[in-house]
This record gives sequence, C-alpha cells and structure tokens, in this order.
Amino acid sequence: MSKKATVLVRLKSEVLDPQGDAVKRALARQGFSGVVSVRIGKLIEIELEDSAASAGLTEKLQKMSDELLANPVIEDYEVLV
Amino acid sequence: MSKKATVLVRLKSEVLDPQGDAVKRALARQGFSGVVSVRIGKLIEIELEDSAASAGLTEKLQKMSDELLANPVIEDYEVLV
Repeated sequence: MSKKATVLVRLKSEVLDPQGDAVKRALARQGFSGVVSVRIGKLIEIELEDSAASAGLTEKLQKMSDELLANPVIEDYEVLV
Repeated sequence: MSKKATVLVRLKSEVLDPQGDAVKRALARQGFSGVVSVRIGKLIEIELEDSAASAGLTEKLQKMSDELLANPVIEDYEVLV
C-alpha cells in the first residue's frame, strides 16, 4: 500500500502571471465573457511508501516544497495529506 | 464582487510524465526516500464576474476546459466551484 499527498503551488499574488493572462485573453476570444483573472499554478501529486508516510508526513512534504517543489521567492505552497 | 473557481488538470494515468519523473529523481537525490511516483498537473484559478458566475457555472467551466484549459487527448480535468 501507499499513501498519496498533494502539494498545490501558486504564484504569490504580487507576481505577474503572463501564462494566466494569455489564457484569460484566449477565453475572451473564444466568447467566454466575464473572466476577471486567471492564475496558473502547479498541482503536484506524490505517492509515498507507507514507511515514508508515517509520522511527520506534512512536515516532510513542507520540507520537499521548500527545497525543491516550490520557489519560495515567487511561489506559495499548500500541502494536502 | 466576483466568484472564484478552480480547475485541476491532470495527465491521464496512462500518459508518461517526464517532469514528474525528474522531480521524483531529484527528491531521491535530496535524501527523500520512499517516493513511489510524482505526477505534475495544473492548478488553474479563475475569477469570474458575478454576472458570469450565475447559472450553469460548472457547465461553463467544463466547456472552457474542453475547449482551452485541458487537452482532452492526454489530460483529465476536475472543476471545483
């Protein structure tokens, strides 16, 4: 058996998101009106062995996020276990 | 006022994810053991005007996803409103 966890990585609100802006414009061109903003982040799904997913799982995933999954200068992350 | 909605876009399980595999190997190099798999998708957060977010919001977001936000050949999406 294994355990699944999710890390959501979002650009900080003060950081521009040109990819999101491009999608917003594309939606308007496709006829979808009323879109105020689009922000695009990452959905990271991690499957862990049970032995690795025991105590301190949230802390472990936070450490992974700080060190590798997110860039703390421009991104925030949220760990869901 | 406006309404926020989220679309999660994931690669279909039968589609290879080289980016996720690279992250998995990088985690192992950093000393995080017991990671079985890493899959990376997109977290799309859409802010809509209230007028655009009334009836049929889920259907509208599904249409956006089918036409633009996801590639239905290789990706699945999930709409959260």
